[in-house]
Amino acid sequence: MTRSPSLYALILAGGAGTRFWPASRAQRPKQLLPLVGDEPLVRQTALRVLPLLDGDAKVAWERVRIATGAHLAEATRAVMPELAEHQLLQEPAARNTAPCIAWAASIVARSEPDAVLMVLPSDHHIVNVERFRATLRAAIDSARRGVITTIGIQPTRPETGFGYIEVEGEITSGSAQRGLKFVEKPDHARASAYVAGGRHLWNAGMFFFRARDMVAAVERHLPAVAQGLAALEQAAGRGEEAQALESVFPAMPSISIDHGVMDHLSELAVVPGDFGWSDVGSFQAAWELGGKDERGNVAPEGSVLIDARGNYVLDLRTNALKKRMIAITGVDDLVVVETDDALLVTTRERAQEVKLVVDELKKRGETGLI
Amino acid sequence: MTRSPSLYALILAGGAGTRFWPASRAQRPKQLLPLVGDEPLVRQTALRVLPLLDGDAKVAWERVRIATGAHLAEATRAVMPELAEHQLLQEPAARNTAPCIAWAASIVARSEPDAVLMVLPSDHHIVNVERFRATLRAAIDSARRGVITTIGIQPTRPETGFGYIEVEGEITSGSAQRGLKFVEKPDHARASAYVAGGRHLWNAGMFFFRARDMVAAVERHLPAVAQGLAALEQAAGRGEEAQALESVFPAMPSISIDHGVMDHLSELAVVPGDFGWSDVGSFQAAWELGGKDERGNVAPEGSVLIDARGNYVLDLRTNALKKRMIAITGVDDLVVVETDDALLVTTRERAQEVKLVVDELKKRGETGLI
Repeated sequence: MTRSPSLYALILAGGAGTRFWPASRAQRPKQLLPLVGDEPLVRQTALRVLPLLDGDAKVAWERVRIATGAHLAEATRAVMPELAEHQLLQEPAARNTAPCIAWAASIVARSEPDAVLMVLPSDHHIVNVERFRATLRAAIDSARRGVITTIGIQPTRPETGFGYIEVEGEITSGSAQRGLKFVEKPDHARASAYVAGGRHLWNAGMFFFRARDMVAAVERHLPAVAQGLAALEQAAGRGEEAQALESVFPAMPSISIDHGVMDHLSELAVVPGDFGWSDVGSFQAAWELGGKDERGNVAPEGSVLIDARGNYVLDLRTNALKKRMIAITGVDDLVVVETDDALLVTTRERAQEVKLVVDELKKRGETGLI
Repeated sequence: MTRSPSLYALILAGGAGTRFWPASRAQRPKQLLPLVGDEPLVRQTALRVLPLLDGDAKVAWERVRIATGAHLAEATRAVMPELAEHQLLQEPAARNTAPCIAWAASIVARSEPDAVLMVLPSDHHIVNVERFRATLRAAIDSARRGVITTIGIQPTRPETGFGYIEVEGEITSGSAQRGLKFVEKPDHARASAYVAGGRHLWNAGMFFFRARDMVAAVERHLPAVAQGLAALEQAAGRGEEAQALESVFPAMPSISIDHGVMDHLSELAVVPGDFGWSDVGSFQAAWELGGKDERGNVAPEGSVLIDARGNYVLDLRTNALKKRMIAITGVDDLVVVETDDALLVTTRERAQEVKLVVDELKKRGETGLI
């Protein structure tokens, strides 16, 4: 019996954004926040796939890789102390997803070209974790057979905020089928046609492939990236990869894996998934997914809520010396977010407008608060 | 030319209450809070009367006395560092207003029986300070002539939450007239009749008298209190007043100066006042009195308010290390109160229900938060 090739989880945790201010900051983006549940989203992502990886939890953690910005490395390890330094792939500059996925594949391919990588966004929420894992297993199997594979989410509404993946033939739940093409965020009419047509799935940014297959695809479709990877591999041979990275990585083109690679593949597999997926795009979404009391409030344990309904309360204050208490009375459907240095009060309906606050803070030069 | 007798301001700062939770606490009652304006109400009270007292500000401060609970002494001096220790009359137990006013009068009478004391609540707001001072001058003049004097506020509505003072004849603004009797908080019908009748004023708890006159009135109408005062004076002769206070003061009857003394006087003067007075009885009142932006928000300077109207925001956090920011967007008429260990979000209309929160905290045994 031959040992089956290793399986790695590469979690993309380089995101930034202003939709969750004051919870999210430049130095503490969305994936580091417990927006749904008690753990930061990136940690939930790792814990969710750990049972798919080899061995017990300790061994499985060793198969996790986190790609993130160098400025976020410390904060990221703080929420996943299980990680050793080398498990963090620190991007010296943001270059979208293709260079970083290609780099990770290249590192693995040096020693284990047949190893499979699954690439997962770090800031999504999954409702049905068992079904999620079953779908991932199918995608991993497909990747092991040498086909770059993605997961497509069964659309539940004509969403214009996501990209779509068109598949060949009817969508068949749970097993890999042939993918035809990636489609950019559509307008409402096209999104409605996609949902009605039954041949389009949401692109959730999850990719599965053998290291060698991704390296080959990058060599073919992204020669500038492949060149950079070759330079990094040479530097690695001299024990100087970290230094080389500083000049090589920022010189790579900034391009998504969807555009740079996936869209050009002659063979692409898609495993349709239906496991309660959300990209947690707003406080409204975080409220929808959160555990609620009998009046529909999502609030920290111990809060006092009197005659209050449908509120989303997030307390990220870190002052552990004082007991903290949040009391909400006589108000409905609010969003209340507390941090050590800021407080936001708005409505669920208008929580997206928090970017106006960030704009105002920028105008005032309050960079420490952004 | 003989030197006119001294004038003292005795500010009653022993209050407690739950209507301003989480701003107000057992250890930080209303008078210590900047509910209207940037200074704690008790400090505003002292600053407001300072120009009436003898000499420059430094000398005038020496004429201020603050009566407060022993447990509040430190916090009270923290907001009025101008005060020397002996200027704080520390009540070992709460005994309503009569024992403490009588004690203050007795102390002054020992050396200056003709000195005048003005007694002022510590937690009220005055809109027109010049008119307020003019009214006080008239009351002080009346007291100097040997008549215990009070100020009655021109009622602007049939308020059932205040006591009233009935005067003889028509109310004549700005000069002392004969007071007939104190009336308890009336029902709405009686309050309406008082306002229509034009012979009742609100009792604002401000009293003016020569030390000797109050001591004599207490001897006559509150013999149990007078007995205690005699014991304290004897102990003072031995330099042991502080020790004696611990046993003597708690043994005095708990009674208001209105009931215990004022109501029994054969001669009482009332100076009607109309200077924009408020007892700041709720967050709603604090909002009404506060300085507002063009959309009717009362909020700390530097707050970001976007499309928000009529909100009252109070930030009492003390963490000076971090820049703090409050952002309110898309909400109207809310009350938002921040302290180091608690946050309240409610509506102006329902802010009085904050006592339900305090009840809940009591039930939970969260005494540290009350």
